[in-house]
Amino acid sequence: MKLSELAETTLSTIESGDADLEIIAAAGLDIAKEGEITFLANPKYTPQIRETKASAIFLNDGVVLDRNDIAVLRAKDSYLAYTRALRVFHPDIDVVPSVHPTAVIDPSSIVASNCEIGASVVIGKHCRVADGVKLFPNVTIYDGVSIGRNSIIHSGVSIRENCEIGENCIIHNNSTIGCDGFGYAKDEQKHWLKIPQVGRVVLEDDVEIGANTAIDSASVGETRIKRGAKIDNLVQIGHSCTVDEDALICSQTGLAGSSVIGKRVILAGQVGIAGHLKVGDDAVLTAKSATSHDVEPGQVISGIPGFENKDWLRATAAYRKLGEIVQRLRGLEKKVEEIVNRKS
Amino acid sequence: MKLSELAETTLSTIESGDADLEIIAAAGLDIAKEGEITFLANPKYTPQIRETKASAIFLNDGVVLDRNDIAVLRAKDSYLAYTRALRVFHPDIDVVPSVHPTAVIDPSSIVASNCEIGASVVIGKHCRVADGVKLFPNVTIYDGVSIGRNSIIHSGVSIRENCEIGENCIIHNNSTIGCDGFGYAKDEQKHWLKIPQVGRVVLEDDVEIGANTAIDSASVGETRIKRGAKIDNLVQIGHSCTVDEDALICSQTGLAGSSVIGKRVILAGQVGIAGHLKVGDDAVLTAKSATSHDVEPGQVISGIPGFENKDWLRATAAYRKLGEIVQRLRGLEKKVEEIVNRKS
Amino acid sequence: MKLSELAETTLSTIESGDADLEIIAAAGLDIAKEGEITFLANPKYTPQIRETKASAIFLNDGVVLDRNDIAVLRAKDSYLAYTRALRVFHPDIDVVPSVHPTAVIDPSSIVASNCEIGASVVIGKHCRVADGVKLFPNVTIYDGVSIGRNSIIHSGVSIRENCEIGENCIIHNNSTIGCDGFGYAKDEQKHWLKIPQVGRVVLEDDVEIGANTAIDSASVGETRIKRGAKIDNLVQIGHSCTVDEDALICSQTGLAGSSVIGKRVILAGQVGIAGHLKVGDDAVLTAKSATSHDVEPGQVISGIPGFENKDWLRATAAYRKLGEIVQRLRGLEKKVEEIVNRKS
Repeated sequence: MKLSELAETTLSTIESGDADLEIIAAAGLDIAKEGEITFLANPKYTPQIRETKASAIFLNDGVVLDRNDIAVLRAKDSYLAYTRALRVFHPDIDVVPSVHPTAVIDPSSIVASNCEIGASVVIGKHCRVADGVKLFPNVTIYDGVSIGRNSIIHSGVSIRENCEIGENCIIHNNSTIGCDGFGYAKDEQKHWLKIPQVGRVVLEDDVEIGANTAIDSASVGETRIKRGAKIDNLVQIGHSCTVDEDALICSQTGLAGSSVIGKRVILAGQVGIAGHLKVGDDAVLTAKSATSHDVEPGQVISGIPGFENKDWLRATAAYRKLGEIVQRLRGLEKKVEEIVNRKS
Repeated sequence: MKLSELAETTLSTIESGDADLEIIAAAGLDIAKEGEITFLANPKYTPQIRETKASAIFLNDGVVLDRNDIAVLRAKDSYLAYTRALRVFHPDIDVVPSVHPTAVIDPSSIVASNCEIGASVVIGKHCRVADGVKLFPNVTIYDGVSIGRNSIIHSGVSIRENCEIGENCIIHNNSTIGCDGFGYAKDEQKHWLKIPQVGRVVLEDDVEIGANTAIDSASVGETRIKRGAKIDNLVQIGHSCTVDEDALICSQTGLAGSSVIGKRVILAGQVGIAGHLKVGDDAVLTAKSATSHDVEPGQVISGIPGFENKDWLRATAAYRKLGEIVQRLRGLEKKVEEIVNRKS
Repeated sequence: MKLSELAETTLSTIESGDADLEIIAAAGLDIAKEGEITFLANPKYTPQIRETKASAIFLNDGVVLDRNDIAVLRAKDSYLAYTRALRVFHPDIDVVPSVHPTAVIDPSSIVASNCEIGASVVIGKHCRVADGVKLFPNVTIYDGVSIGRNSIIHSGVSIRENCEIGENCIIHNNSTIGCDGFGYAKDEQKHWLKIPQVGRVVLEDDVEIGANTAIDSASVGETRIKRGAKIDNLVQIGHSCTVDEDALICSQTGLAGSSVIGKRVILAGQVGIAGHLKVGDDAVLTAKSATSHDVEPGQVISGIPGFENKDWLRATAAYRKLGEIVQRLRGLEKKVEEIVNRKS
């Protein structure tokens, strides 16, 4: 693709370099080769610019390049422009309409004719699989599931009874959608009595779920992941939670039951959200933090339990010296005691 | 089901309402419809009572209802009564005796005739599968495994060599029972030498295991999950651990090797238990806490490392102001210094 | 095996006991039976020596045994010697050359003739499976994967496009190798635009991966786990990470993207490593700690965020009394105020 076309596709402008330069791929600064385009977004990697072999680079406004052998595409957001370039060079997974002879599809289910159904896929009763869906091998679809157009389900995934998957969703390997919520009542003998978990999970359109993640069904009703939300690997979503549009949930984070995660919320890695609470739109919980209280829209929260990130940063700085602080306090107590004694 | 029958089944008493009222389902306050029964257990949801469309409600002793258009069933534990109601309306998963033609069962294994064995299930050598067991599709059972009566194994589960599953167990999707423990000795070249992991896992009766959970085999001997223990999704149980009866282990909690979890212990979400220690009966570790020491029976522990919950609550409250505390200490040091200087 | 042979194989020396004593197995102190050899490494278990039924024991130099009915094998590292004994009694998993008739192997792939390919295994296009490999049932191998000699892949594992598995690797059940990294750019509408993840994962020789673990592919380029590294269950390795030789990563630990873990580093359970950083050779992060900064070689780090372990130990001791510390500070402030007031 010519540099000029690439600029157009990525909504960037050529600042320097030949508009007819042929670009054949996109890659990071350290691994890009001649004929490829790269990008600089994280200033930490600025020194790598000196050594990159890329032929072109996306740069944010204001960033200066001290090499003149690399074409510069200026972008409002170089990371976004690079992403668009990568998407040009790497189109989506192919779907080859076919049903593998080892797939087992219950005759009561309706699978559109242009789907690709892999080997050893099992589809239960009364399911609906829409146009352009790809089920990789060894996927198990329980009864009553529906899967929207162009969704891709990777090998080893299980989708439980009556769940609904929207359009253009991607579910990575070995994830479980719609397993039983973790609900028990303690009976008179102090044994746990299982609460039936007969609800379901709904993934709206454009949702992506990582590998080895578990999303629980509601006991009654539904767990809902709304349009455009993205969930990473090894995440736990408890029963009856709602994850709102464009929320981003990083790896190994866990949500207990019945919590509501707002629009565009970011939960970083290994975060914990207690049950029955609300995280407001655009809030951020930094890595390894936790909350058992509601979080206001736009707040940035850290710590266990979490509080304002800027207070937390001060607290953690002091914490490192807490041993020393206690010694200083002890010294001060002694001094004051001496002053008091001297006076009397 | 008539209200009077439901009261009897749920061990509750009709306080108000027509004994012949027909109840057709049970659901939470917010989603229950006419003809359904709901409950109030968490006072947080009291305001929802005003708007619920339910026709009947389970209430704990002492809780007052300010509506007279809803039948009231008074229960010692409304949550337990509601659970019993749900169980009436949602009986257990059906088992349809059958072996799918794509299932692969080694001829040396014995599978009872009234089991349901799903598509692409693989059962190794010398296994025993008792009456009423249901194996969903794509389950893999290694050699020498036994599965007790009426247990249900969901799709994608792997049960490794020689493990023993009790009666009425449920194992959710993509969990692994009996994978190798994580054991290595460092050799003279500082390489890790694998310690053979040739023990097994025993799940006693009435154990439930969530989705995407991993329970390691002992190196030699066994890892044992005792009667009635419940384990959530994405939990790690290390080799040679014992989890005692009716313990409850929430999502993303991890146990290192050789630890012993007492009866009715509750480990909340994302808890960490170090190796070779004992958590006493009825102890509780709150979410995200960790311990590398024994925990006394009945203790409630929080923090990393964990200590008494009530001390931890005070400590976390102070922690938020730790930056300010250090400033106060500095101010005090200055003042005392001035006093001392003035005196001399 | 005779005691004398066992001593030779385990690089230990007979200190007491009959060289011709027949040893038939190895096991821990509490479960070893007559005719078996055991070991003492963790001093915590010293009391069990009095009651063990073992006929022989590996002891570290300097450890005294007050029983004379047990043969003593003296070893520089009793744990390593015991490991070697276990390996004598429990040789590796058998590989029975065969391809199960239900396995589906694309004709463009090359599988060596002495491999064991289990039931319902699916192998995509252009793969290469070398001598002595064992694929347990229900494994899914995507297109372009290569698997080196004598590697063992357990049931439920998925290996994604173009990944490379070295020789003598073990991958436990339901793990995912090469799923998409979690990468999105925010577009002008604040929606997440997926960054193509078209790189791959390389596991070098002698790598072991636990159960239900997820290792992300690089977006472009590779994620690399180097020779001899060992990774436990439920671990997350983000895209473009490098884990160096003989590193040990315990359960439920997570690495964000593009981080580099040095040689022989130990990451204990539930550790979190932020993205784009470097943990130096031989560093240790203790359980539940986290770092968002580089870690120097050999450092021992604890806490969230992590700092020197010995400072952390002091800080955590003080933290338990933080509520009390604040009271002492308040008391002191009052006293100083009184002194100041009295003076004026």
